[in-house]
Amino acid sequence: MRVTRRYSFSASHRLDSPRLDAETNRRLYGKCNNPFGHGHNYVLDVSAQGAVDPRTGRVLDPRALDRLVRQQVLDPFDRRDLNTECAAFGAVVPTSENLGTEIMRRLKANWSDAFPGGGPELERICIAETERNIFQVSADETA
Amino acid sequence: MRVTRRYSFSASHRLDSPRLDAETNRRLYGKCNNPFGHGHNYVLDVSAQGAVDPRTGRVLDPRALDRLVRQQVLDPFDRRDLNTECAAFGAVVPTSENLGTEIMRRLKANWSDAFPGGGPELERICIAETERNIFQVSADETA
Amino acid sequence: MRVTRRYSFSASHRLDSPRLDAETNRRLYGKCNNPFGHGHNYVLDVSAQGAVDPRTGRVLDPRALDRLVRQQVLDPFDRRDLNTECAAFGAVVPTSENLGTEIMRRLKANWSDAFPGGGPELERICIAETERNIFQVSADETA
Amino acid sequence: MRVTRRYSFSASHRLDSPRLDAETNRRLYGKCNNPFGHGHNYVLDVSAQGAVDPRTGRVLDPRALDRLVRQQVLDPFDRRDLNTECAAFGAVVPTSENLGTEIMRRLKANWSDAFPGGGPELERICIAETERNIFQVSADETA
Amino acid sequence: MRVTRRYSFSASHRLDSPRLDAETNRRLYGKCNNPFGHGHNYVLDVSAQGAVDPRTGRVLDPRALDRLVRQQVLDPFDRRDLNTECAAFGAVVPTSENLGTEIMRRLKANWSDAFPGGGPELERICIAETERNIFQVSADETA
Amino acid sequence: MRVTRRYSFSASHRLDSPRLDAETNRRLYGKCNNPFGHGHNYVLDVSAQGAVDPRTGRVLDPRALDRLVRQQVLDPFDRRDLNTECAAFGAVVPTSENLGTEIMRRLKANWSDAFPGGGPELERICIAETERNIFQVSADETA
Repeated sequence: MRVTRRYSFSASHRLDSPRLDAETNRRLYGKCNNPFGHGHNYVLDVSAQGAVDPRTGRVLDPRALDRLVRQQVLDPFDRRDLNTECAAFGAVVPTSENLGTEIMRRLKANWSDAFPGGGPELERICIAETERNIFQVSADETA
Repeated sequence: MRVTRRYSFSASHRLDSPRLDAETNRRLYGKCNNPFGHGHNYVLDVSAQGAVDPRTGRVLDPRALDRLVRQQVLDPFDRRDLNTECAAFGAVVPTSENLGTEIMRRLKANWSDAFPGGGPELERICIAETERNIFQVSADETA
Repeated sequence: MRVTRRYSFSASHRLDSPRLDAETNRRLYGKCNNPFGHGHNYVLDVSAQGAVDPRTGRVLDPRALDRLVRQQVLDPFDRRDLNTECAAFGAVVPTSENLGTEIMRRLKANWSDAFPGGGPELERICIAETERNIFQVSADETA
Repeated sequence: MRVTRRYSFSASHRLDSPRLDAETNRRLYGKCNNPFGHGHNYVLDVSAQGAVDPRTGRVLDPRALDRLVRQQVLDPFDRRDLNTECAAFGAVVPTSENLGTEIMRRLKANWSDAFPGGGPELERICIAETERNIFQVSADETA
Repeated sequence: MRVTRRYSFSASHRLDSPRLDAETNRRLYGKCNNPFGHGHNYVLDVSAQGAVDPRTGRVLDPRALDRLVRQQVLDPFDRRDLNTECAAFGAVVPTSENLGTEIMRRLKANWSDAFPGGGPELERICIAETERNIFQVSADETA
Repeated sequence: MRVTRRYSFSASHRLDSPRLDAETNRRLYGKCNNPFGHGHNYVLDVSAQGAVDPRTGRVLDPRALDRLVRQQVLDPFDRRDLNTECAAFGAVVPTSENLGTEIMRRLKANWSDAFPGGGPELERICIAETERNIFQVSADETA
């Protein structure tokens, strides 16, 4: 069974790739290359897969997932500027693709601490930058 | 092609597992262990897969699916208390995981009567307890 | 300026008026008269009106409103059975109309403690039982 | 990684299959067989899969996808009558299943022109006729 | 107290005013002047105002409102072409403004039959053509 | 009749009032006082009131309103940092209250140019910072 929980956070970013020159950055990202940045209300769906525990009737303890997401996603990203405050985006442009990859990396690295004794497996995340732009990262895509 | 139809129902439940002692139930389910219960507006998505019938341009007859869902889900669960009125939750705690499993069991057991002559295959259901808690059950998960 | 903040809670209820006989209750409330109750995810919008404080740029302190709503609405009603756990619904049928009236009464009675020194005025609340049934109570409707 | 972008368009249609007689059409499609037609706000989600380009931080150029969808879907279908104005629905009943198949056919046929040099692969589309009726077509379903 | 109930219907229309010449119609309505029409999923909110009946805990009987809206709005407009099937739009262009006015006229004309003995007053309707275009008509606007 | 059109834009801001000391700013705005800022997807509803023009069936020309909102709101605010790029927020903290006031000021100042010859009156705007925080400004509130 797949269980999904939804979280929200608000952050700012500027799209400007250190691997591209100024003119290419402007052409590629348009208004999103604006040097002062802009921001979004991000919606994050975290999905895990597992069997239902017959004693609890649950696939996972929702409080354990909430704690993991708070520590690894909400505390570092909510009400933050991704470019200046998040080490992951020093040399990496904070597109939602890269933000999704970073969130997946963080959840995977800390998953077994959050769910000791095995159980549910992290399966994928979806991050919506706006309700018309959605990015899905599978757990087996990243190292 | 996958076809999904959405249904809604409102029910009450209390999370209290007969396999756990009172203290564990309280700790595990928190406010949801409140002895008098509480309730939700559940949103159910039913997905079937099949080929488009070239004569009708449809994968399935939506009225046949509506009838099946009304008989197997809405009539027994809408405006009901899951713990006291649904035999399936006598010894099983009515979490959304177990509710989803029960709904899938009911739809599978009656699918071929609803769609005689084959055709669309029941693929999966999603049940949202709130818009931030979603549970997906595949048809091949359950016996 | 009108400021609105949205809250959610889940509760169960049974519609059965002590002022009506059993047959009338059944006819009037239909499935909602089911003796074991059912439940909803309620969405509550609280609206206040006031001038923008030039120092803070705000009409009201959102944390003060959150605290008031938590104490007066979420703590007593979230994950509760309205009929059995809420004194207000001992002799009063817990329709959303009466629930809205009770919530307005509670917010009004405690508003000046939450916002000492005056400032924003409680203007109205909206309570949605489902997204298709919405009830709005003005602050000046009730005693 | 899967990237999804959402588009909307409004169109009218009448469900009346040239392969069925009048009585069967009436029975099968009910009100949707009304000879004067009716209409919907369709919501289209286009999903592509690919690797993140390390220079741009993107799976695909959103403007290239917008251009493709505008030319192949929005220009021919938005504010149109599907039955009379779209050649694809001359002998084919414009159900959402067939509309989805036609949109997928158009996107596939023009995908490599829109994304020259390879890169993202068209994976699937979802078309919602209303928020309670959703149709998903995979890219590998159609010729 | 204000009570609002939400209904949905799907219809097609063409914007072409008999009081304007062809060129002006084309310029004014753009794609919506397309001679073959197009359609929408309309969302209708009906709001009434009244006191809570102490016996029932309700402002109005929701089944009486449902019956009125079915007879006066859903039956004549759902799955219909507004221009050709609705007498009201013979000489009147079926914009959402005029559709809203016609719906209000119909609800007002039949309100006292639906709610005999007085009670709730029809206050206003909102009609959303898409979620970005909303039209509100007050009951006291129209004759 | 009231006509409402919905627009969206994404911007970043930092809540730090020049009229308050650093400690008060930190206490008052919490995470929103973070020196590097954060951002939101703002949703703006613009409502005008007027009579339906019997020739066009409309209260206002939607393209005229779109042009006004693009020039006065979307161009200056979309994908911008409110604090550094918008003169209005030099000495004024860019809360949604103040953002709403500034948007209302801009729409009012340019309304008669957008709708020459009179007709619809600007009535109010609603700005949603998130779907749980909504701010409404009436046209007659501001100078």
